[in-house]
Amino acid sequence: MEVQIAVSKIRKYATSNSGDTVEVVERPQGGVSVVMADGQSSGRGAKYISVMVVRKVISLLADGVRDGAAARAASDNLYAERSGKVSATLNIVSSDLHTRTLLITRNNPAPAYLARGEQVSLLDEPSGPIGLYRDTRPVITEIDLEPGLTVVVFTDVLVHAGSRTGESMHIQEAIQDLLECEEPSAQYLADSLLENAMRLDQQRPVDDITVVVMRVVSHTGDEVRRMSVRLPVTT
Amino acid sequence: MEVQIAVSKIRKYATSNSGDTVEVVERPQGGVSVVMADGQSSGRGAKYISVMVVRKVISLLADGVRDGAAARAASDNLYAERSGKVSATLNIVSSDLHTRTLLITRNNPAPAYLARGEQVSLLDEPSGPIGLYRDTRPVITEIDLEPGLTVVVFTDVLVHAGSRTGESMHIQEAIQDLLECEEPSAQYLADSLLENAMRLDQQRPVDDITVVVMRVVSHTGDEVRRMSVRLPVTT
Repeated sequence: MEVQIAVSKIRKYATSNSGDTVEVVERPQGGVSVVMADGQSSGRGAKYISVMVVRKVISLLADGVRDGAAARAASDNLYAERSGKVSATLNIVSSDLHTRTLLITRNNPAPAYLARGEQVSLLDEPSGPIGLYRDTRPVITEIDLEPGLTVVVFTDVLVHAGSRTGESMHIQEAIQDLLECEEPSAQYLADSLLENAMRLDQQRPVDDITVVVMRVVSHTGDEVRRMSVRLPVTT
Repeated sequence: MEVQIAVSKIRKYATSNSGDTVEVVERPQGGVSVVMADGQSSGRGAKYISVMVVRKVISLLADGVRDGAAARAASDNLYAERSGKVSATLNIVSSDLHTRTLLITRNNPAPAYLARGEQVSLLDEPSGPIGLYRDTRPVITEIDLEPGLTVVVFTDVLVHAGSRTGESMHIQEAIQDLLECEEPSAQYLADSLLENAMRLDQQRPVDDITVVVMRVVSHTGDEVRRMSVRLPVTT
């Protein structure tokens, strides 16, 4: 089996800072987690908040704290620091090799998508952002880790992509269509969904867009772990 | 311009834990750093140490601390925690978009490799691991960030790869040969160097092997940032 994670990310058109933060961390008992946060408002303030939230969660996960507890701690922390005046969305997607499960933790009104094979379902149980209230709890979905699973999460904007043009993006259909290709890689899925959203925004994203994909595939390759980052730099 | 980072990593043959830890972090003023540590001894103890060192460094870099100061702090911290009895090697490779420089920070007797175009040079100024003495300082190389740069660092074992078979690996030549291909990606370089080492070890690595490559290329693509992780899971 192989777990693939892909993140594709673009800044709001004509801004220098993205308010979204995504980091990947190795789990101490085996496996990997990807943590994504989007701070309220935009620019430097939003970035500061999203970095704070992601670092808190990453640090707790690295200490062996479970995903749900880490999300609650990040919420309490943001609430205490900003007196409930600032919110952030938070998603954690984990492959836990100790429990042999895949975990999707949402504190985000935007839904997540879970596919088994080519059947995509919507994880849209009501879920609010963190930081606004005491005792904010995430919505957690936990399923057995097995080949054929795909999870897609994104910052809220993908839902609104195309709002300027009046078109709407049918995310679930888009994921389904992509999965019907032969074994698309996680990176191909993330890139395609991001491209889709950017096309609807006429290549000038109205907000930062981040897409995170985790796929579990039957492993056919070697035993090498790989990580790859590509960072465009404006000259 | 585009900054590419690739990490390829394999465990020692017939062990379940790698003692090496590598993480990537976004720099608060722009850019990205990759932090690699290898704890003394092997198995769980080594992993605990390398995770501790990497997390300390990552956390300081995320706070805006400079690379050299972060390495010194990690050394002091390990020295204080383990009374100078445990060492770890540490490498930090950063693309700093604020200073527009590429930084290579070494606390590792193993050399690093720096190529400008296809000309590979050895960064082998004497450098010791962290944790054994007070005031351990890293060796830092800082150069202007520009297309055509390639940095390769690895845990010490790549130097010894093939020791079992009596062959030795000519790393500098191997990098040079690879760079003479047309614009190899960072991932291709990392994979090829790891494969090379594994072949010399007859596919049964005598220790964990981690290869980190950072490349700066003339950017021709889009403005999307990408991160991709592939984690093989034994079933």
